[in-house]
Amino acid sequence: MSLTDSTATEIAKTASIASRLLATLAGAERNDALTALHEAILNSRDDILAANSRDVAAAERAVEAGILNQSVLKRLDLSRPGKFEDMLQGILSVRDLKDPVGNVTLRTLLDDGLTLEKVSCPIGVLLIIFEARPEVIANIAALAIKSGNAAILKAGGKESNESFITISKVISEAIARTQVPKSSIQLVQTREAVSSLLAENTYIDLVIPRGSKDLVRFVQENTKIPVLGHADGICSSYIHLDADLDIAVKVIVDSKTDYPAACNSLETLLVHEEVLESILPAVAEALLAKGVALRCDQPSKVALLSRIAATQRPLIQDAIESDYETEFLDLVLAVKTVPRDSANRTSLDFAIDHINTHSSKHTDMIITRSRTAAERFMNSVDSAGVFWNASTRFADGMRYGFGTEVGISTNKIHSRGPVGLDGLTIYKYKVRGQGQMAWDYSAGGGGRGWRHEALPL
Amino acid sequence: MSLTDSTATEIAKTASIASRLLATLAGAERNDALTALHEAILNSRDDILAANSRDVAAAERAVEAGILNQSVLKRLDLSRPGKFEDMLQGILSVRDLKDPVGNVTLRTLLDDGLTLEKVSCPIGVLLIIFEARPEVIANIAALAIKSGNAAILKAGGKESNESFITISKVISEAIARTQVPKSSIQLVQTREAVSSLLAENTYIDLVIPRGSKDLVRFVQENTKIPVLGHADGICSSYIHLDADLDIAVKVIVDSKTDYPAACNSLETLLVHEEVLESILPAVAEALLAKGVALRCDQPSKVALLSRIAATQRPLIQDAIESDYETEFLDLVLAVKTVPRDSANRTSLDFAIDHINTHSSKHTDMIITRSRTAAERFMNSVDSAGVFWNASTRFADGMRYGFGTEVGISTNKIHSRGPVGLDGLTIYKYKVRGQGQMAWDYSAGGGGRGWRHEALPL
Repeated sequence: MSLTDSTATEIAKTASIASRLLATLAGAERNDALTALHEAILNSRDDILAANSRDVAAAERAVEAGILNQSVLKRLDLSRPGKFEDMLQGILSVRDLKDPVGNVTLRTLLDDGLTLEKVSCPIGVLLIIFEARPEVIANIAALAIKSGNAAILKAGGKESNESFITISKVISEAIARTQVPKSSIQLVQTREAVSSLLAENTYIDLVIPRGSKDLVRFVQENTKIPVLGHADGICSSYIHLDADLDIAVKVIVDSKTDYPAACNSLETLLVHEEVLESILPAVAEALLAKGVALRCDQPSKVALLSRIAATQRPLIQDAIESDYETEFLDLVLAVKTVPRDSANRTSLDFAIDHINTHSSKHTDMIITRSRTAAERFMNSVDSAGVFWNASTRFADGMRYGFGTEVGISTNKIHSRGPVGLDGLTIYKYKVRGQGQMAWDYSAGGGGRGWRHEALPL
Repeated sequence: MSLTDSTATEIAKTASIASRLLATLAGAERNDALTALHEAILNSRDDILAANSRDVAAAERAVEAGILNQSVLKRLDLSRPGKFEDMLQGILSVRDLKDPVGNVTLRTLLDDGLTLEKVSCPIGVLLIIFEARPEVIANIAALAIKSGNAAILKAGGKESNESFITISKVISEAIARTQVPKSSIQLVQTREAVSSLLAENTYIDLVIPRGSKDLVRFVQENTKIPVLGHADGICSSYIHLDADLDIAVKVIVDSKTDYPAACNSLETLLVHEEVLESILPAVAEALLAKGVALRCDQPSKVALLSRIAATQRPLIQDAIESDYETEFLDLVLAVKTVPRDSANRTSLDFAIDHINTHSSKHTDMIITRSRTAAERFMNSVDSAGVFWNASTRFADGMRYGFGTEVGISTNKIHSRGPVGLDGLTIYKYKVRGQGQMAWDYSAGGGGRGWRHEALPL
C-alpha cells in the first residue's frame, strides 16, 4: 500500500487499532507469524530477487551516469553471496530471542487480596524510517512483531522501490495468514508521507530514524513524537599518563579504523601531555600506516613531527576548534593534548570536561592502568557507553549480547546505547483486588495500614 | 537567585555542570546533604513561617477582594497543624529510600577479561514546574538530590513568593556546606523564565510539570525537551455483566468521591446493558447520596429514572458526547451503556475500545467475577494502570509502595503511571577490557567467538 491509497491519519489510526490486538497475542502467536514470514520470504526468493535486480539495473545506470554512489549500489544488491540467507536467518534469530513482553518485574502485596504487578508490554505504534538496504524491511518487521508493536515503515531512497514493494507484499500476505493483524506492518513510500506521519502524535508513540544525521535531525526537529536514535557519534578516547602502550595502540587503531563510517568509531583522541613523546608516536605511526590523517593541536603536532617519517608528515595536520566536535566518519582523527594536573584541575578532570562538552554522549573511552582513574572516568563521563581499555567499536547490540539492535540511542531517557527488544517495550501496572477502597487506608477513613510486601516474581 | 541575575542559558549550563559532579557522589554523600537540608529547615522554622505568614496575609486580602480562591490560601498556609512537620519528615523519608543510583541490572562476560555492565545513573538536569504549595520545594529538592539530578525549580503562582525565597535561601545555604554542588538546586521565579528554559534542550534533559492541565499542555507544546507527566486523568470503570454488586458499589463510590479533584478519580462509568436494572441502580443511589451528578446515555437514564427517588432525579442528566472525554474533577460522572455481545463485537471488546479511544491512558478498571474477562481487559486496555475490582484511587506512588512520587505519567516511553525515584534515573553501559579490539571478533579478522555469559549481579 502507499499514501496514494490513504492519508497519514488513516495509516496511523489503523496501525493504532492493530497494535491493541497485537499487544494481546501470546508470544507463541507472534513467533508463529515470524515463522510464516520466514517461509514466505524463502518461497518468494525468485520474485524478490527479480524485483531487486530491476532496482540494481537502474542503480547501475545511475552510477554510470554519475548520479548515484557506488556504495549505495553495493548495499542495494540482495543477490550478493550470503545476503539473502542472512536476511532469512535474521528473522529466525529475532523469533528465537526471549519474549520481551509480559515479563513481571515487580510484584507487591499491597494488602490482603490486593496485589500490584509491573508487567512489560509493547509501546504501541512505531514509525521507522530507514535507508535503502532492502533486507532491513524484513529485520524491522521481525523486531516489531516480536516486541508486539505495530510499525509503519518508510524506506528512504527510491533506489530500492521495486525490492520494497515486492518484499512488503510478501510480508503482508504472510501476516494475513497469522494471528497478527495485517495492519501491524504498513509500508509507506512517498517522501511527503514522512512529514504527515510525524504530525500523528495521537496514534504514533515512537519514531526511530535509522539513517543519516540529516534525517535524524529533520525528524527530531519536526515532530512532537518521542524520537529514539542518534544524530552524531562523536566518540573520544583519552590516553592517561599511565596508559599501557600496547593497549593504547591496539584499541585506538581498532576504534578508528575497524569501520570508520560507523557511529561507534573514534573521532577525537585526547592525550596526556606527559605521554606525547612516549605513547603518542607509536599510536600515531600505527594510525598513519592505515592512512589516518591526524588533526593535531600544537603540542601534539610538535611531538609528532620530530618522530614521524618525513613521508608521513603530510598526514599530520593542524586542528581547528570545530574538529573536536566533528564526526568525520572517515580516516581522520582530531588529537588534543590534555595538560598536566594544575592547582585548579586534574588532567583527568580536563579530559572528562572536554568529553562532556564536545562528545555526543555515544561512547567514550579511557586508556589507563589505574582502576581509580578508570572508575572516575566512567562515573563522570555522561555518555551511553563508558569504556576502559576496550575499543569503542564494541558499542553494538550484537556485541553486547542483545541478539539484535534496533539502533543506538544518545537520548537521556527511556533507552540509551544499543537498543535491543527491551527498548521497544514499556510497562503497565496491574492491580487486582476484591473491592478495596482507597478510603479504607486513609487517616481520616478506615485507617488500615499497608502491607507493601515484595512477592516472588 | 532569580532570572534577573542570570539568563536561562547560564542557569541551565550551571545546572548541567553541577549535575556531572553530583552524579559522581556516593549515596552517603547525597544522603548527608539531605540530613543537612532537614536540619537547616528545622533551624529556620521561624524565618520560614514568618515569610509564609506574609504570603498568607497577602493571600487573605486577595481572597477578601475576590481575586484569589480560598483553596489556594489553604494550600499556602505552612502553619496549619502538622504541615511543617510533614515537610521535614518528607525529606528524611526520601533520604531513607533505597539509592536509585549505581544499581547494576546486567553484567555480562563478553569474553575473557572483557565485561559489560548496565548501571543506573541520574538523568542529568531536571526542570520542574510546580504549583504554589511552599512545602513542595523541599520535597522536590530532596528527590532531585537523592536521585543525583540537578534541578531547576520554577514555582507557579506569585502567592508563595516570600515563602519560596526564604526556603530556597535555606536550601542553598544548607547545600553549600555539603558535597552536593550548590548549583544542583536552582530556583527561578519569573514566569517569563519558563519559556526561556524550555528552549534549553542542550542542557536540560527532562521537564516535569506538576500542575494544571493547561500548564502541562503549554509545556508539551513549547519544548523539544522530553516532558514527564500527564495533562488529563480520564479514568473509566466498566461494570461487566457478572460484576459483584457490593464490590461495584464500593469501588465506584470510592473511585469517584474519595477525592474528586485528583487525577486518579473516576470520570466515566461503562455499564453492561444486562445489569442496568440490577447493579446500576444501587451504584447510582450510593453516588447520588454523595451528591454526584450522573450524565447518562438514554438506556442508563431510562433504567435509573424509574428506580430513583424523585428528589434525586435532577442529578440524572443527559450526557453529551464530549462528557465521555471530560475530566470533570468534580462530583460529576459520565455513564454509558455497553451493548450485549453482537456477532461483530463482544461487550467486553466494546468497553475496551471505548476506553482505548476516550480515556487518557491513566488508570482504568473492570468490575467482574471472571478472571478471564479481567485478564483480557487488563492486557487490552492501553493505560498505565489497569485495575480489577479495586479503586482507581490506588494509582499513587505511596500506595504502590514506592515511598514517594514525582508525578504520574501517561507517556508511552521511559516511565508510566506513578513515577518514583527510578523514573528519575537512566542507565549507562560500562565496558572494562584489557586491550580488546572489535577486529578480533570479526569474521574477516580474528574470528574469535563471544562468550556472552551472564555474571552474578
